Amino acid sequence: MPIVELHVLQGYESQEKLRLHEALTDAVRLVVPAPPEAITVLIHELKGEDYSRGGIHRQGASALPDAGDLVRTYLSAMEARDLERAQSMLSADFVMEFPGTGPLRTLDELIAWAKPRYRFVKKTYDGFDVMQSRKAATVVYCRGNLSGEWPDGDSFEGIRFIDRFEVVAGKITRQDVWNDIAEVKANA
Amino acid sequence: MPIVELHVLQGYESQEKLRLHEALTDAVRLVVPAPPEAITVLIHELKGEDYSRGGIHRQGASALPDAGDLVRTYLSAMEARDLERAQSMLSADFVMEFPGTGPLRTLDELIAWAKPRYRFVKKTYDGFDVMQSRKAATVVYCRGNLSGEWPDGDSFEGIRFIDRFEVVAGKITRQDVWNDIAEVKANA
Amino acid sequence: MPIVELHVLQGYESQEKLRLHEALTDAVRLVVPAPPEAITVLIHELKGEDYSRGGIHRQGASALPDAGDLVRTYLSAMEARDLERAQSMLSADFVMEFPGTGPLRTLDELIAWAKPRYRFVKKTYDGFDVMQSRKAATVVYCRGNLSGEWPDGDSFEGIRFIDRFEVVAGKITRQDVWNDIAEVKANA
Amino acid sequence: MPIVELHVLQGYESQEKLRLHEALTDAVRLVVPAPPEAITVLIHELKGEDYSRGGIHRQGASALPDAGDLVRTYLSAMEARDLERAQSMLSADFVMEFPGTGPLRTLDELIAWAKPRYRFVKKTYDGFDVMQSRKAATVVYCRGNLSGEWPDGDSFEGIRFIDRFEVVAGKITRQDVWNDIAEVKANA
Amino acid sequence: MPIVELHVLQGYESQEKLRLHEALTDAVRLVVPAPPEAITVLIHELKGEDYSRGGIHRQGASALPDAGDLVRTYLSAMEARDLERAQSMLSADFVMEFPGTGPLRTLDELIAWAKPRYRFVKKTYDGFDVMQSRKAATVVYCRGNLSGEWPDGDSFEGIRFIDRFEVVAGKITRQDVWNDIAEVKANA
Amino acid sequence: MPIVELHVLQGYESQEKLRLHEALTDAVRLVVPAPPEAITVLIHELKGEDYSRGGIHRQGASALPDAGDLVRTYLSAMEARDLERAQSMLSADFVMEFPGTGPLRTLDELIAWAKPRYRFVKKTYDGFDVMQSRKAATVVYCRGNLSGEWPDGDSFEGIRFIDRFEVVAGKITRQDVWNDIAEVKANA
Repeated sequence: MPIVELHVLQGYESQEKLRLHEALTDAVRLVVPAPPEAITVLIHELKGEDYSRGGIHRQGASALPDAGDLVRTYLSAMEARDLERAQSMLSADFVMEFPGTGPLRTLDELIAWAKPRYRFVKKTYDGFDVMQSRKAATVVYCRGNLSGEWPDGDSFEGIRFIDRFEVVAGKITRQDVWNDIAEVKANA
Repeated sequence: MPIVELHVLQGYESQEKLRLHEALTDAVRLVVPAPPEAITVLIHELKGEDYSRGGIHRQGASALPDAGDLVRTYLSAMEARDLERAQSMLSADFVMEFPGTGPLRTLDELIAWAKPRYRFVKKTYDGFDVMQSRKAATVVYCRGNLSGEWPDGDSFEGIRFIDRFEVVAGKITRQDVWNDIAEVKANA
Repeated sequence: MPIVELHVLQGYESQEKLRLHEALTDAVRLVVPAPPEAITVLIHELKGEDYSRGGIHRQGASALPDAGDLVRTYLSAMEARDLERAQSMLSADFVMEFPGTGPLRTLDELIAWAKPRYRFVKKTYDGFDVMQSRKAATVVYCRGNLSGEWPDGDSFEGIRFIDRFEVVAGKITRQDVWNDIAEVKANA
Repeated sequence: MPIVELHVLQGYESQEKLRLHEALTDAVRLVVPAPPEAITVLIHELKGEDYSRGGIHRQGASALPDAGDLVRTYLSAMEARDLERAQSMLSADFVMEFPGTGPLRTLDELIAWAKPRYRFVKKTYDGFDVMQSRKAATVVYCRGNLSGEWPDGDSFEGIRFIDRFEVVAGKITRQDVWNDIAEVKANA
Repeated sequence: MPIVELHVLQGYESQEKLRLHEALTDAVRLVVPAPPEAITVLIHELKGEDYSRGGIHRQGASALPDAGDLVRTYLSAMEARDLERAQSMLSADFVMEFPGTGPLRTLDELIAWAKPRYRFVKKTYDGFDVMQSRKAATVVYCRGNLSGEWPDGDSFEGIRFIDRFEVVAGKITRQDVWNDIAEVKANA
Repeated sequence: MPIVELHVLQGYESQEKLRLHEALTDAVRLVVPAPPEAITVLIHELKGEDYSRGGIHRQGASALPDAGDLVRTYLSAMEARDLERAQSMLSADFVMEFPGTGPLRTLDELIAWAKPRYRFVKKTYDGFDVMQSRKAATVVYCRGNLSGEWPDGDSFEGIRFIDRFEVVAGKITRQDVWNDIAEVKANA
C-alpha cells in the first residue's frame, strides 16, 4: 500500500521522471515487502513561483544524466578506442584500478598496461546495477563476459568480469575492474 | 528542495524507518542534483483502520531485514566455518560462482574447490553497496581485500575481491565472486 | 489508481471510519471505472488543537448513526408491534404512504388501515441500499418479500415489496411503501 | 470541517468532476453531521508521467456515464416505444421483474405482458436516487406517478410507481418495478 | 524544517504569491525558531472545477492590494497636496488623529489644523511594518523623520515620526500619527 | 477556501499551536480577501523518526516566547520600577529612544532622563500589534494612554503614546517611544 509523493520544482523530462518513479518505488521495496504494483508514486511538480525557502524562490536544477547510460557510453568509447570521447567523460581526479595494476590515472597508462596482455577486448553485459551512495557518488556496476584476442592472435571469450564505477556530477571519478583473465590464463 | 512524503501502515521500527529515509533521499539524489540536506523526507504512518483499498482494510507487513547486514552475517559465518548458520541464510535455489568454478550449489562443493587453493581466507571490507533491483532481488555488493594462508602455509594479504549477492525475501539466492588471487599467484 | 485522503477531526470509531472508507470508495467508483482494489482511502485524523477555521478551533461532531441499521431496527420494532420503540425513531413531521393510503402521519392510522388487509406481515430482505441525498435526507431502500396471514387466517408469502425511507438527524422523516399485495389478491 | 482530497489521473471533464465533488461530499455526509458547506473537496489531477504503480505508468480510464441519465434515457426510449434504442442500453444478461411477472428477459416479453394491461403508460418523476453499491452495480431508483390509458380507452393518472435499476459498465443489467396499478384497479 | 502547503484557487499573480510566501514564512517564524531558509512554502493552485464546498464550486477572489504600497501612495499624494487622489484612498468612515487634534474626519480639517504649525512637511522613511490584525483591518506602520518649514520660513529636519494606518478592503479607515514636533519646538 | 497545512516536528504546546493557527490564518488574509472562517489551518505533527533532511534526523526547537507577552511583562516591570527584572529581558546590545533623548543604552540613563519630566507614569493599552519582520526581529507595537504625575505633583492622564519594540531570540533589542507629552505641556 505504500504511497510516495514527491514535490519537486517543474522542469523534469518524462524519462527523468520515470527514473524517479522507479528509484522511489525500489527505495520503498528495500524495506517494505510489498509487491511492486502495490507501491504508488505521485510526482507533484511546482512552478518556481509556487515554491520558496525563507520566502525566497529557489532555482531548480537540471536532472543528472543517467549514470548507467554514462558508463555504457564510456565503455563503448573505450571499446572503439575513441580515447578523446572517453577522456571527456572522466573527472580531473579520475582513478582506475585493474587486476594487478594498482591505481592508474590516465588512459594512456591503461593502454600501455593492457598492450602485452591482449590485442583487444569486447564486453558482453549480463547486467547493470545503478545506485546512489550515501556520499556524493552514484555507483554503477556492470558485469558480464569478455571476449577478444590474446597478443598471439588466439581468441578468447566467456571470461567473467565486473566493473565498478563512481560518477559525480556527470563525470566518472573512479573505475575498479575485476575479471578472470589471470584465472583463465593459469588454466590454459 | 525536493520533499518526499511516504504514507505507510504503522508498525515500522525507528531503524527501519531510517533505512526508508536514507533510501528515499538517495532515490531522489539519483536524478535531482540537490545537496542531501535540501531533500526532506516525511513519513506519515497510518493506523490499519485509517487505510483501505476497495473499502477493505489491508494488513501491513513486517519490514525486510537489512540485506547488507544479512550478507555481512553470512560472510562472518563462512569465515568462522559455521556452515550450519551460513546454510540457514541461503534459499533452496541458491547458486554461487567463484573464479573458475562455474555454478556451484552447495557450500560443500565450495569448500572442496577451495581446499587446494588456500588454507583459509579473511576479508577486510572497503565498502558495501546495497540496492533494490527492479526485479525481486535486493543486490548487495561488498568489496575489499583478502588475507589468509596458501596451502603451503605462506600468508598473503591485500588481494582485491568483490562479491555480488542477490537476496530475496530474506534469503541469499545468488553469490558471484571475483578476485585477484590468480593474478597474484601468476606474478608470485 | 484514485487515492482519497480525508482530513477529519479525531473521534470517530473504527466502525464509523469503515463506513467512511466504503462510502468514499464507492463515491469514486460512481464515476471512475477502477476496480475497487485500485481505490485507496487514507483517513488523517486531526486533534482539535491541530485544526482551525479563522484561527479558531472548532468542535467535531459525533458520527451519524448508520441509517440502514436505524431502518432495520424500526422495521423490527414494527414487526414486533413495539409501537413505542418504533414511534421513538420517527421525527415530529413524519409522513408515510402505503399503496392506496395517501399520506398518513401516525402509526395508529397505519394500523387501522392495515387491519382489514392482513392479520400480520413479516419481511424477508433481499437488500438494503443506503445513500446520502444532495439534500438533508439520507435515503434508505429495503426490498424483499412479505409473508403473513390474510384476515381469514390463510397465509401468504413471497410477495415483493420495497420501502423507501428518508432519515434526517437520526430520525425517520418519511416512509414510502410499494408492494404486490393488490396484484396477488387480484390473481387469487 | 472535513476536507477530501482526490488524486486522480487527468482526463475527466468538468461535468464528471462535478459528479465526483458531489459524491465525495455526500459520502462524508453519510457519517459526519457537518453542514454541506463545511465539507471541502479538492481534486488533484496527475499527468500520466506523474503517476506510477510498481514504477510503471498506468492508463487512466474514461469516466463512467451518469447512471441516472442512462436510466432516464432508457425510460424515454421505452415510453417512445423506440425498442431498438432501449435494447441497445441493456446488457446481455438483462433481467426485469414487474408486478406479477416473475423474471422477464426480453423487451418483447414485457410488451406482450403489458398489452392486456394498458394501452400506454407515461411516467412523471418525483425523484431519482443514484448510488454505487459495494458490488459491481450502480443502483438507480426513480419514482413518481404513472398516467396512461387502460385497454378500454379510459385514462388513468397519479398511480405511484418506483423502479430500481442496476447498471454495470454502462449497461442496464436489472430492472425491478413496483406500482399501485393493481391497487387502483381493485378500488375502481 | 517546517513545511507550509497552501491550497488556493488559481488566479493569483506571481507578485501576490510572493507576498503569500513571505507572510506564511514569517507566520511560522513568529513561533518556530527555525532559520528562514529552513522554512519551505508550497502553493498548490486549484482550478475552479477542482474545488468545491458542499459539492458546489466557489468563486475565487482577487488579491487584496499590498497595504504597504497603498499607504506609501497615500502619503506621497498628501505630500504632493494631491488631495483628490488622497481622498480616493480613504473609506467613508475614515478617522485620523494627530498630536493634539482629537479625531479628525476630513483632509480639510487636517490642513486647517496644520496651517499654523508648518508650511509643509516631507517624510523620510526608516521602515514600514505591515501585518494583518485578527480583526478586519490590515495594519501598516511607517516611521522615519520629518523635514519641512515652520510658518516663519525656517526649515527643520530630523524630527522623528510614526504613523499607524488601518486598511480594510483596500481603503484606509484610520490614521494615527505621533511625532516629536512639540518636543523639538519646546527645546528650540 | 484557502487551506494551509503546516508540517512541523512535534513538541509544541496547545497555546503555541494556537499562535501558529492565528498567524498562518492572518498571513493568508493579508493577500486573499476570504472571510476568516473560510480559512482552514491543519497542523501535522511529525515524530523525530518520521522526519529527515539528507536522510538525517533533525532536532526540533522550542517555541519562541510570545513577543507580545514579553513586552507586556517588560512594561509592567518598568512601571513597578523592578529594574532587575526589566534588565533581564534586554539583550546586550539593547538601544532605546524616547522623544528628545537620542539613543540610550541603559535603564539608568532612561531614569535620569525621566526624572525632571514626571514623577511616575502608568500606561493604559489600546492595543498590541505583533508581527515577524522579514529580518531577525519580531516587532511589537503597543499604544494607548499615559497617566501619572508631573514633577510638581499635578496629575495627568489621557496622553497618547506608542512604543515600538524589536525582539530577537526572546530578548528585547530595541525600543522606540513616541508620545504627546511635549504637545500637552505646550498647551498647558
